[in-house]
Amino acid sequence: MTIDRLNRLYSLMSAHSLDAFALNPGPTLTYLTGLEFHLMERPVVLFLSPGTNPIMVLPELEQAKIPQAHIPLQPFPYGENPTQWGSVFAAATRAADLDGKTIGVEPTLLRFLEFQYVQAAAPQAHLISGAEPLAALRMQKSSAEVARMRQAVQIAENALVETLRLIRVGMTEREIASELTLQLLRSGSDSAFPFKPIVSGGPNGANPHASPSDRPIQLGDLLVIDWGAAYEGYISDLTRTFAIGPVDDECRRICEIVKQANAAGRAAGRPGLPAGQVDAAARAVIDQAGYGQYFIHRTGHGIGMEGHEAPYIFGENTLLLAEGMAYTVEPGIYLPDRNGVRIEDNIVVTANGCETLSTLPRELITIG
Amino acid sequence: MTIDRLNRLYSLMSAHSLDAFALNPGPTLTYLTGLEFHLMERPVVLFLSPGTNPIMVLPELEQAKIPQAHIPLQPFPYGENPTQWGSVFAAATRAADLDGKTIGVEPTLLRFLEFQYVQAAAPQAHLISGAEPLAALRMQKSSAEVARMRQAVQIAENALVETLRLIRVGMTEREIASELTLQLLRSGSDSAFPFKPIVSGGPNGANPHASPSDRPIQLGDLLVIDWGAAYEGYISDLTRTFAIGPVDDECRRICEIVKQANAAGRAAGRPGLPAGQVDAAARAVIDQAGYGQYFIHRTGHGIGMEGHEAPYIFGENTLLLAEGMAYTVEPGIYLPDRNGVRIEDNIVVTANGCETLSTLPRELITIG
Repeated sequence: MTIDRLNRLYSLMSAHSLDAFALNPGPTLTYLTGLEFHLMERPVVLFLSPGTNPIMVLPELEQAKIPQAHIPLQPFPYGENPTQWGSVFAAATRAADLDGKTIGVEPTLLRFLEFQYVQAAAPQAHLISGAEPLAALRMQKSSAEVARMRQAVQIAENALVETLRLIRVGMTEREIASELTLQLLRSGSDSAFPFKPIVSGGPNGANPHASPSDRPIQLGDLLVIDWGAAYEGYISDLTRTFAIGPVDDECRRICEIVKQANAAGRAAGRPGLPAGQVDAAARAVIDQAGYGQYFIHRTGHGIGMEGHEAPYIFGENTLLLAEGMAYTVEPGIYLPDRNGVRIEDNIVVTANGCETLSTLPRELITIG
Repeated sequence: MTIDRLNRLYSLMSAHSLDAFALNPGPTLTYLTGLEFHLMERPVVLFLSPGTNPIMVLPELEQAKIPQAHIPLQPFPYGENPTQWGSVFAAATRAADLDGKTIGVEPTLLRFLEFQYVQAAAPQAHLISGAEPLAALRMQKSSAEVARMRQAVQIAENALVETLRLIRVGMTEREIASELTLQLLRSGSDSAFPFKPIVSGGPNGANPHASPSDRPIQLGDLLVIDWGAAYEGYISDLTRTFAIGPVDDECRRICEIVKQANAAGRAAGRPGLPAGQVDAAARAVIDQAGYGQYFIHRTGHGIGMEGHEAPYIFGENTLLLAEGMAYTVEPGIYLPDRNGVRIEDNIVVTANGCETLSTLPRELITIG
C-alpha cells in the first residue's frame, strides 16, 4: 500500500516540477514509511528522489526501525557528536544526487535545523515548499483512513459523555479538562492527543483558543468544550457548548444561530464545490442574524492525521472538494468579555455529497 | 521577572553579534512572554530587536492573549486568508527595522514556513542559528524553576508506583503504557506530556526508542520503562528497569553494571566540570565491565522546559557545567534481540556539586 503512496507522490512531484523531497518526522513521513520518530534535536530526514532508493539520515540509535519500514530504505546513520552530522548529510545527498536539484519540503514541519544541514550538504539545491503536492497526496482519505477517523470520533464522543456526568458548578476549567483527558485515555485514545482540550466558561469562551484556567464554572455561563482523540494515527476534533444552569436570552439566541450555521456548513460539501463555499454557507447564517463581526475565524480546516491540514475552509479558498476529503465545520460567535459559543463537527466528502462523522446532539443542553 | 530575562537575552545577543531574534512558539517564547501558542499552520513570530518594542505577528483570533504577556508586545495581527500574511510580516519587519540585520532563530523550532515569511519580508536579513545564546539564556535554572522540575519528578514517581501495583505477566507493553499515562494525569501531570512513555520488554528493550507494542510481558523479561511528567511548563524524564519474575545471570549482571554507571554519572557533576566528563564517568563503568559497545547513546541531555535541551552529555562536549544546569544521566546496555536496561535520573548542578532530583530505588526489583 505504501509503495502505491510513494508512486503517487512521484507522479505529483513530476506535475509540480520537483526533483526530490526532503521530509522530516511527521504525518507524511509516517504515511509513506509507517515509521514514527520523535521530532528532536537529532535531525531525521527522508530523501525521496525517483530513480534512487529512498534514503534516510538518522541517529544510529534509531537504526533498528529501518527494517520495519513499509518501503525499502537506505540508512545513513550518525553518532552522538553533532560535529560529524554534516558529513553524513553530505554523503546522503550525494547518494541521492540532490545538488542543483529542486527539493520540496514540508513548510510546517521542516525546521531551520534540517534546512541548514540539507542546504550545506547540497549548496546548489533549491529548497521550496512542497505543501501543494503533499496536500494532494494525503487529502483524499481511503475508506480505511475514514474508518480510523470514525473511531477517533467515537472515542472522543464516549469520553465527553462520561465527563459530562461529572461536571458540577464550581469545578474549574482545568479540573474539567483533566477529567476529559482521563476519559479520552479510558475510551481508547492514543496518549499523543491531537491537542489539549479547550474548556472555557463564561467570558473565557470569547477567546477561541483559550487555555483552561482556574476559573470555576458558574450558573449562567456558556461552557465551550473543544476536544479530540487520536486513534491509529488519525484524529478527531469536536466542539460542543453547554449551558450551566439557566442562561440569558442572548446566550440562547447565539447558540441557536451557531447551531443553524453549523448545520448549513455541514450540509454544503460535495465533490466539485469550492471549499470556500462551505465557509460561505455557514457564515451567511451568522451574518444574516447580525452577528457576522463576532465570527472571527474561518469555518474549518482539513482533518485526518493532523489537527490542521488541507483543505482549509475559508472564504477565498477555490480548491474544489473531492470524495474522501475531510474537514471540520466549526462556526462560532464570540462576544468579548461576555460569552462564546462554537459547535464543531467532522465531515467527509462522499461520492455525491458529504457525511458528518460526529453524532452528539447540537441543541443547547443544560448541565451542572 | 521576564523583563530581566529579556534584558539578559539582549546582552547575550550583543555578545553573539546578533542584531535581533525571530522566535516562534515554544519554550523560549513562553519563557520570555509567559504566552503559549499551538504550533500550527498559522505562523506566530516574536521579533526582538533592542531599541524597538517587542513585536508579535499572530492570527487575529489569538490577539486576546497579547495583554496577558509578561512584557509589552506590539501585535501585528492577520486574518484568515494566507495570501495576506506576507504583507503583515513585511510591516512587522519594517517596524522592527530588520532588513539587512543578522537575526537569530531557534533551529529546532523555526520552521520553513516562518523562515520563508521572514526572509521574504526582509530579503537582506541574514538568518542564523541562535541556539548558543538561547541555551545560555535558559540553561541555568532558578530555584523557582528547579522547584517545578522537582514537582514534575514527584508526579512521575507517584504515577509509576501506582502503575507497578497493576503490572502482571501477560499484560502488553501498550496496556502498561496506557495505565502509566492515566496515572500520570491522576498524579497531577499536565496533559501535554513531555513524551509518550516507553514500555519495552525482553528483546524490545534492546531498542532505546521503541514504541510500546502489543507484545505481552513474559517471565524472564527485563522491562524498561522510560516516562516523564509535565508541571507548570517544566518536565521530568526518568527510566527504571524491572525483572519480570526470575531473570538470567546476564540480565542481572547488566542491570548491576548500569546501576553503577548511573551512580558514577550522577556523582560526577559540579560547577566548572566539562559536560563530557559526566559522560566519561558513566561510560567508564560500562567500558570496564566489557559492555562498552552495547552502550550506544550519549549519557544524557539537558532538561527543564523541554525533554531535550542543553547541556547535552556526550563525550566531546567541552561546555563547563555551572550552578542551576540540569540534565539527565541515563546509561544503558542494549543486547540486540535479547534484552536492554537503562536507568535514568534528573540532576541539577549545585554551588559545589550536584543533586539528584529523583528518588526511586535503582536496584533490580522483581515485579509481575
